[in-house]
Amino acid sequence: MAKQNITIPAGTRDFSPAEMTRRSYIFDTIRAVFRKYGYAPIETPAMENIESLTGKYGEEGDQLLFKILNSRPHEAREERKAKMREAFETSLKQSFNSDVLTEKALRYDLTVPFARYVVQHQHEITFPFRRFQIQPVWRGDRPAKGRYREFYQCDADVIGSNSLLNEVELVQIIDDVFTALQISTLIKINNRKILSGIAEVIGEKEKIIDITVAIDKLDKIGVDGVNQELQEKQIAAEAIAKLQPLISFTGDFEAKMQLLENLLSSSEIGKKGIEEIRFVFDTVQQLGLQTAAIELDITLARGLNYYTGAIFEVKANEGTLTSSICGGGRYDDLTGIFGLPGLSGVGISFGADRIYDVLNELNAYPESVGTTTTLLFTNFGGEDTAYALRMLQQVRRAGISAEIYPDTVKMDKQFKYADKKGIAFMAIVGESERQNQTVSLKNLKTREQEQLTLEALIQKLSQ
Amino acid sequence: MAKQNITIPAGTRDFSPAEMTRRSYIFDTIRAVFRKYGYAPIETPAMENIESLTGKYGEEGDQLLFKILNSRPHEAREERKAKMREAFETSLKQSFNSDVLTEKALRYDLTVPFARYVVQHQHEITFPFRRFQIQPVWRGDRPAKGRYREFYQCDADVIGSNSLLNEVELVQIIDDVFTALQISTLIKINNRKILSGIAEVIGEKEKIIDITVAIDKLDKIGVDGVNQELQEKQIAAEAIAKLQPLISFTGDFEAKMQLLENLLSSSEIGKKGIEEIRFVFDTVQQLGLQTAAIELDITLARGLNYYTGAIFEVKANEGTLTSSICGGGRYDDLTGIFGLPGLSGVGISFGADRIYDVLNELNAYPESVGTTTTLLFTNFGGEDTAYALRMLQQVRRAGISAEIYPDTVKMDKQFKYADKKGIAFMAIVGESERQNQTVSLKNLKTREQEQLTLEALIQKLSQ
Repeated sequence: MAKQNITIPAGTRDFSPAEMTRRSYIFDTIRAVFRKYGYAPIETPAMENIESLTGKYGEEGDQLLFKILNSRPHEAREERKAKMREAFETSLKQSFNSDVLTEKALRYDLTVPFARYVVQHQHEITFPFRRFQIQPVWRGDRPAKGRYREFYQCDADVIGSNSLLNEVELVQIIDDVFTALQISTLIKINNRKILSGIAEVIGEKEKIIDITVAIDKLDKIGVDGVNQELQEKQIAAEAIAKLQPLISFTGDFEAKMQLLENLLSSSEIGKKGIEEIRFVFDTVQQLGLQTAAIELDITLARGLNYYTGAIFEVKANEGTLTSSICGGGRYDDLTGIFGLPGLSGVGISFGADRIYDVLNELNAYPESVGTTTTLLFTNFGGEDTAYALRMLQQVRRAGISAEIYPDTVKMDKQFKYADKKGIAFMAIVGESERQNQTVSLKNLKTREQEQLTLEALIQKLSQ
Repeated sequence: MAKQNITIPAGTRDFSPAEMTRRSYIFDTIRAVFRKYGYAPIETPAMENIESLTGKYGEEGDQLLFKILNSRPHEAREERKAKMREAFETSLKQSFNSDVLTEKALRYDLTVPFARYVVQHQHEITFPFRRFQIQPVWRGDRPAKGRYREFYQCDADVIGSNSLLNEVELVQIIDDVFTALQISTLIKINNRKILSGIAEVIGEKEKIIDITVAIDKLDKIGVDGVNQELQEKQIAAEAIAKLQPLISFTGDFEAKMQLLENLLSSSEIGKKGIEEIRFVFDTVQQLGLQTAAIELDITLARGLNYYTGAIFEVKANEGTLTSSICGGGRYDDLTGIFGLPGLSGVGISFGADRIYDVLNELNAYPESVGTTTTLLFTNFGGEDTAYALRMLQQVRRAGISAEIYPDTVKMDKQFKYADKKGIAFMAIVGESERQNQTVSLKNLKTREQEQLTLEALIQKLSQ
């Protein structure tokens, strides 16, 4: 066969062993914290029925779905083929959107499949349902630096409980995860009810989306930019004036709360939002966080149409990444889209790929991350190899990751292999070791070498 | 929104927490053994370029690929739209096979993506490359009991080494995995070179595929059925007669080897096969297996076109499943399909779904598998809850999986929740516990209850 130009689809990635061990470290850390908090794992299929996904992410989202072709079209009856032709012609005008051609699509996130799961399995689930899910998702976005077409999400949600203790717990989970990963973070928190209250008291209740979309951009476009956008959206000058103290909101938590309490005193929903924020803040502060800081940020909106209560966003204090590495919030009617209204939920999602970028930049991996094998036995052939194989078997049974160079080649080549693979120790087993029933253990970093019995070797490497 | 009939695509599955903990136990066991043997993890994207997959699995395999529609067809230029129409018309006659409509497909197995990976990354890889890969694969097969459209494969391969020590090691890995999973197994082993030798000495060298396909069915159709199929395939009566001692092959390993040595004494390739089988058997026997039995089975063929040396297949000795739970072999030119010839490899693949079926039938999970939370704190509200939250935080920091019932509801409801979720212990924290700075720990199995300090509680549950 002629040599091909071998590639993978744009926006997808292969993960090498070195990358995998680093990524596993991130996933294992997050998973261990989720488990410690009593969250139970679920998995859903990569493919969902297309009608479970379309209409859930807006028009732009529908365009980003990877749709799977129905197979064996040539086996269809003539009548169905006519329908397929018709659907195809429509697709050439307005994109594929017919289940005559495609009945399945790859999941776009873990939230909608989770809502579908809860509705489908509602009679088997014990509510309140604390679940976590760590799986890849797919989006046909234009690939760019840091934007992939296949990437992992790590979600934890509690569904079927209105208690604000869930919000407190999610903040603790965020603190636990980033403390374990040694990333210093700032947890920003807001509440949709406060945003609703603000829109209400400035007399622009109907324009809450325009208002929050604008102030959400404060970081990027500054106060003047926000005010200009508000004007463009036909927000009254009087209302914009009332917003000013909030946009240039500074001071500590109590100062901010004071301002909000004054401003929102006439708004029932606004007061409820303040009460909720206060409970979450106070409880978190009483229990204490390990390394994360927490801040009230009333410009935080994040998919406003979705959230109905708390809104979370986490940023790393270190490194150059400015986008968030975790986010979430409360949604009062997620399962309503699948016909089961009235179940309130709250959840967070860790962005494993962004956390990976931050850790790579900080080089903040523990030393053990990145190596796959602890010990390599030399292969000198004949009796030496037979002896090495017996030793190797005992070492592995003791739980130590070890291998033998499979071919009898020059020692130099075997050393190079160990070196490239990042193996820490070589076990040199030649005639003298075999006769003494020992192993010469060489530390490939320090170049120190010592003769050890098998027991001593196992003891040394088990530490 | 009107109530929908909520489903997932046929042949796919949701995994509940109870199923996930069982499946994780299987994956974690296999992964730990792979690591202990120095195999390094990789992952490849779910989607491959369609030309990387087509033509690799035969015509039937091509039909089973899940193909992904190119997106935004309506944005294409008229010229391209004309091509798409043409491709679509062809598809209605002979299935979708044009990259004008579909450039990507979901991977069908892990072997071809691995070959693609090795060729693409050949300059970064340290050979011999021991890699493992645990990921889902997708096949548009007709769904049936035990046959899924999305299922996991767990593969380990060594590429770039001809050493038979790799075969020995793979047998040890199989023994290690099933010993850990407590499944008694029979490892069947054969060698393609023996099959080639047999075809040669009976004078039907060209018909090796017909012969091996027929004798591979011995289990299912018996000796008479095999002979009939051989006749139908135009194998000479004389050749069939020569095959008889092999088909009704019994006795121990040495008896079988004796027979083969006599039969294949005139075939160079046959003698090489015998030499290879003997080395693997002898080395495995000298080192000793923990629980698996190993047997020479010359009717074993498994995808003959693919394998060039050793062929492995593993069956469970217990339970009703008759199909294999692990299989593999040596292939001398896997990467040749991507333009890199001459790299020999050998690998095995564990069928996680079948292993799951066997373990479920035997109910052979350790007791710890299946629970996600160890301890549930009661939520009585007010000061009691505040006290419980402080205790809970300490328990979690000690690494114990624990939660609090998030809402202040009747104790009965909280007990029921613990019960349904399979939580082993309840921590009852009311006024008296709070005043004594203790916790009442109730074992939900034995119904025993005791008052403990926080330190004693942590010590007890850490065991």
